[in-house]
Order: sequence, then C-alpha cells, then structure tokens
Amino acid sequence: MTSAGAVVGDLAEEQLLELIQARLAPVARDAAWPAGTVPPGDDAAVLPAPRGTVAVSTDAMGEGTDFLMTWPAGVRTRGHDVGWKAAAQNLSDVNAMGAAPSGLVTALTLPRDTPVTWVTALAGGFTAAIRVLGAGDCRVAGGDLGEGDRVHVAVTALGDPPAAGVVRRVPAPQVRARMLAEGAVLVHASGPQGSGWGTPGPGWAAAGLALLLTDRKRLLERAASLDPADRPGARELAHAVRAQLRPRPPLALGPAAAGSGIAAMMDVSDGVGRDAHRLARATGTPDDPLTPWVDEAWLARAAAPLARVAALSRREPEEFVLAGGEDYGLLGLVAVGATVPAGFERIGRLEPAGRRPAGHRPLPERGWDHFGAVR
Amino acid sequence: MTSAGAVVGDLAEEQLLELIQARLAPVARDAAWPAGTVPPGDDAAVLPAPRGTVAVSTDAMGEGTDFLMTWPAGVRTRGHDVGWKAAAQNLSDVNAMGAAPSGLVTALTLPRDTPVTWVTALAGGFTAAIRVLGAGDCRVAGGDLGEGDRVHVAVTALGDPPAAGVVRRVPAPQVRARMLAEGAVLVHASGPQGSGWGTPGPGWAAAGLALLLTDRKRLLERAASLDPADRPGARELAHAVRAQLRPRPPLALGPAAAGSGIAAMMDVSDGVGRDAHRLARATGTPDDPLTPWVDEAWLARAAAPLARVAALSRREPEEFVLAGGEDYGLLGLVAVGATVPAGFERIGRLEPAGRRPAGHRPLPERGWDHFGAVR
Repeated sequence: MTSAGAVVGDLAEEQLLELIQARLAPVARDAAWPAGTVPPGDDAAVLPAPRGTVAVSTDAMGEGTDFLMTWPAGVRTRGHDVGWKAAAQNLSDVNAMGAAPSGLVTALTLPRDTPVTWVTALAGGFTAAIRVLGAGDCRVAGGDLGEGDRVHVAVTALGDPPAAGVVRRVPAPQVRARMLAEGAVLVHASGPQGSGWGTPGPGWAAAGLALLLTDRKRLLERAASLDPADRPGARELAHAVRAQLRPRPPLALGPAAAGSGIAAMMDVSDGVGRDAHRLARATGTPDDPLTPWVDEAWLARAAAPLARVAALSRREPEEFVLAGGEDYGLLGLVAVGATVPAGFERIGRLEPAGRRPAGHRPLPERGWDHFGAVR
Repeated sequence: MTSAGAVVGDLAEEQLLELIQARLAPVARDAAWPAGTVPPGDDAAVLPAPRGTVAVSTDAMGEGTDFLMTWPAGVRTRGHDVGWKAAAQNLSDVNAMGAAPSGLVTALTLPRDTPVTWVTALAGGFTAAIRVLGAGDCRVAGGDLGEGDRVHVAVTALGDPPAAGVVRRVPAPQVRARMLAEGAVLVHASGPQGSGWGTPGPGWAAAGLALLLTDRKRLLERAASLDPADRPGARELAHAVRAQLRPRPPLALGPAAAGSGIAAMMDVSDGVGRDAHRLARATGTPDDPLTPWVDEAWLARAAAPLARVAALSRREPEEFVLAGGEDYGLLGLVAVGATVPAGFERIGRLEPAGRRPAGHRPLPERGWDHFGAVR
C-alpha cells in the first residue's frame, strides 16, 4: 500500500523488504528450496552444494562509478537495468568456472530519496536476468539493506561446480606443457541472442557505453553529419545500449564447455585483448612465454556490424571488439587440433616466442592505440 | 614499495590487491585450500562444502551510516576496526545457524584519497577477526575493488552446516507444539573474553556507540560533574568502545549449541528485546502467541557493570542491555526442563498468554521508554 511517488525513506525496512521479496518470488519459491536447504528469513540461508564444494564470487556496482542515473546521452538507468547487470556479471563469474549458479545474495545501499518503484524494479531485474539468462536453479538467498548517499549494489553469486571439475585460467599440467611447446587455440562464446537486433558479440557493451557517455546534442549533430548509409539505425543504437545495460553471459555454455574438456576459461569483463593476455600469462612462464594473436578474418567479421555505431562515436569498430569490456562472453583455450566446444568459435592463437601464425595479427593487451604501436 | 603517505588513487588495482593479499596471507595460505577447492585469482573461488549444503549471509558497512571516520567523541575509526567488524558481523550470521564459517568474500568501495595503510589495516582486521574469534577454517575467498565517495565494505560469509542440521529461528514442529503449550526458556551466550576489562555482555556495544556519538567536550564536562565513585575508568570506557568497534561473536558456541540440540537460535544484532520478540513471533502463532519475559536477577547482573558508563551517557544501563544491538551474542530457545547448552545462560522465558513467571518482567520490543510504558 505505497503511493506512486513513495521513496525508500517513507517505508520501514520490513515494508521495503516485503515489496522486494514479492518481485523475487519467481526465483525464490518454495519448490526451489529442497529438503536440507533454508530460504531467506533466518540469519543465513542454506543452499544446496551437492558436489561437496561451492564456487563463490562477488562484484559490486556503484552509482557514479559503474553507472550514471542519467547518462550524458539522456538515457536514464532503470532499476531493472541495475538489478539485471549486477546479477548477470556475478552469474558470469560462476559460469566462467564451468559452475551452474545455485544462488546469490545482495547488499543494497540506497539513498532515502530513491523511488520505491525503482527498487522493486531492481529486484525485478534480478529475477529477469536469472530467468532469461537460463540460471533456472539460482535462488535469491537473502540480502542486506542499508542507507547511503548513492545507490550501491554488491552481489555474491554461488555455484555448483561441474562433475568434470571447475575450469581455471591455467590448464592442467599435461595440457599446459603441450601448449607451451605447440601454442593453443583461443576460443570465444557470446551470450544468448536477445530479442533485439542480432546477437551481441564482443565490443557491443563498450559501444553502448561510448554512446551513453556522449552528450545527446553532440550525438544528434554527429548523426546529421554522417552519410545516411553510415548512420546507425535506432535498433542498432538500442542494441548497443542494451548490451551495456543488460549484458547476456552465456550461462548454458560454461558448464557445457567444462563437460567437453575446455582447457582454460574466463569471462570477458575487461575486453578480449586484456583477458587473452591474462590467459597467456596464466599458461605461459617467464622462460616459455605465450603471445596472443587474433584471427584477422574473425576480427573483420566481429567488427563489421559495429561499423555504424562506432562511426557515430568517432571510434574504430576493431577497438570496441578488442578493448571493450563488460560483454561477459567466455574466453577459453583448447589444445591445437582439439575440438572446439559447442557454442564457441576460434578467434585466435597463443603462440610460443618466434612463431607468427598466418592470417593473424598481434592482439594488443590494452586499447587500440597500443595495438597500433605493437603492430 | 609505497611511500608512507600513499593513497588508493596512487596505485594500480593490482598493486593494491597485492598489498591486501599480503595482509590476508595468514588466513589464505595454501594449506587451507584442500584438493578440489580453488583459492582467489580465478573468476570465482571454490570452497569446501563437505555436507552438501552451504550457509550464506551478506551484510555491508557504510561510512556515514554504520560508522564515522571520526566520531564526535574524537575517536578515529581505524581500517582494522572496519575489517574486524565487517568480518565479525557476517561470521556471526553463519554462527547463528550453528554453521562453522568456511569462507568470506568482500566488495570494497574506497575513495581515491583513502590512505593505503588504512586499507591494508582493514585487510589485517579481517585476518585478526577470523583468527582471534576462532574461525580457523574460514578462508578469504576473494573480492572486488571499486571507487566511491565513501568507504563501503560488503561482506558475504559462507559456512558448513553442522552434522545435526542448521538451527533456525523456528523450532522443529514437535518442540514448537510443546513450547506453544508450556512456554520456553530464553538463553543467551556472549562472545569470548577480550584482553580488556571483563567479558563484553549485551549492551556494551550500544554503550560504546553512545559514547562515540557524544561530543568529546561534553563527555569531559559530564565526567567532571559525576561523583568519583560513579565516574567510569579509562578501561571501562575503552571496553565499551571496543565492544562497538570490534564485536566478539561466540563462534565456538553456535555449532556446539546445534550439536547439543538447542531448539531455536539467532544472533543479537538489534538488541535482546527486539530479537527475543522475533523468536517469540517465529515460534508463536496468532492463536497461540508467546510473550517474552526477562529474568530480573539476570537483568540486574548484566546491567550492574554498565552503570558508570551509562551514567556518563545519561542513560539507564538496563536500556543498553535490553535495547542495545551489535553485540552479536547468541539468543536461543530451549524447552522447559531441557539442558541449557554450554556457554549459554538463562535470561528469561517465552510464555503463553495469561502466564506471568515469578521474578520476571515483560521484555520490551524496542527501547527503554517503551519498556517503561509496558510495565
């Protein structure tokens, strides 16, 4: 019984919790809490961990740092977006180990003047991300409400490791030894297709961020200055913004890749370039370093659909593909000649010193400028 | 290699992480990560969950809301204090289920001008709380670093449920039915004794908060106006402040109480009065309500050592004992005539409507004023 304009400070903590829980009901119903587990309401919840271990990761989103309530482009961040992204990026970390999300908890910090509807939409965003991204067994296992100057959402996700064991950034010793000698194939998987314009691949979240951070008036001026054929359409723009605000990690593919024996894996939170270098350092050694190379044909294919959006931001589409973060795809290694797991594609190589694979160029660790220098 | 005056903004994230990890080393060493688990460094850590379930709880502390960097009394909050308390209050939630802490993760938000030494002291506070409070098998399983206007520390604690099953706020059906007819005994356990002045019991953290929130000059004036016999000594004052800044949940007693069949349990985060009413509502029903009563002799014993500190704050010591939160003791129910678990003491009763136990008075749900009104 809250009026349309109610803010957080108008309600007792219990009232706000009740409204939040109503929005979480689809993923916190009794059926999802088997015997021996405990739903939220006690001091702690108890989640199933059938394999005798549990994967755990935490990540926070802060207003002003990780998102703006109103972006220079004029877009307002909805509670739904923040809930979705906070859940998605944590589910992604669990996914990157090959684990299946089993639950998440959240500590919400809210200014007193936050509209109650914004907060219930945030809870709805948690629920939507869990359901739409396919983390059907993930329970919202409780949380904490606090007051602060800015919205801050800390989420911890838990997961069941796969039967085959978790996949780490460093391969098992035997595979690693082979990779140090022969190199490795770099593979990538994007998230499930959204309802919008095509499938979001690497770079789309960064393209969306670049749009959001550009002043609305400037965007309109730039659009007017572009040749109509080079001007992005409304669906392209919405697709990029949605990739940034509501990323889509491929939650079905992490456990599947673990089952099909992928050698190493991580999620792409900081860009394909930087994260490929992390995988290279995890497998390589100071004596036997490995260098990442990107497949030129793949890069051209991944960059092409970003061309018009990049033009509007005065950036190169390849920069978004290689240096853009927050898409939460999966980046992995398979041995040379080994099968690429379903849903993944080859995007490059790790090579021992002195080897230069045909059709590839060096993959820069950070942004496009550095890439130019390396090339 | 950071200079004494370095602040967070001077370092790369990796450098700060390295300094934090060095302070966490005593509780994150290799020996604590058995086969099948994964220490921090990948996208998620993997913790043991030998019983096939895992207890999980989250709680955050924000500067300005949960603590002040400099209190009106002049005391400065050290990083060590914040790390200790953030860990302790989350370990306490796991303890309240009868579970043994197995790990914690933290999302830290830090202003760029936070001294690096303050942050490493915070990590040291995590380590100290885990070791001193006896959560020897608790691993720091990773975290997240972010930037913000104020310090914000979100912690999620995980725990292994006890062999006998977790203890909830509501007793098992058979015991509950008996309690609805006969009432129940309210029991409480305080934390382990500190190195300071006596054992911190209920009310000491609230007494410390009242001191911290009073202007230093006013405290000195009030102290001068008190009769020397009524004036608290430096050790008493330090004991109260320490109880607020570094609470001591009895981590050995939660799992032990579960093993000895305590019927219901929770930790005292909001005061004995409010939390006893929560237990009463969890066990009672609208048709068979239960009312909490506090043992007058226990109350007098618990209040006596707080008399001088309370006088300085112009408060009643009983108010601190019954309405003061954040001591993180354990509050539980045992059936009438059943054994009180080791380390616990009887502090009152839950009674069916119309029964008034001798030597008890009604336990108010909120502060002392309300109590006066009820009485």
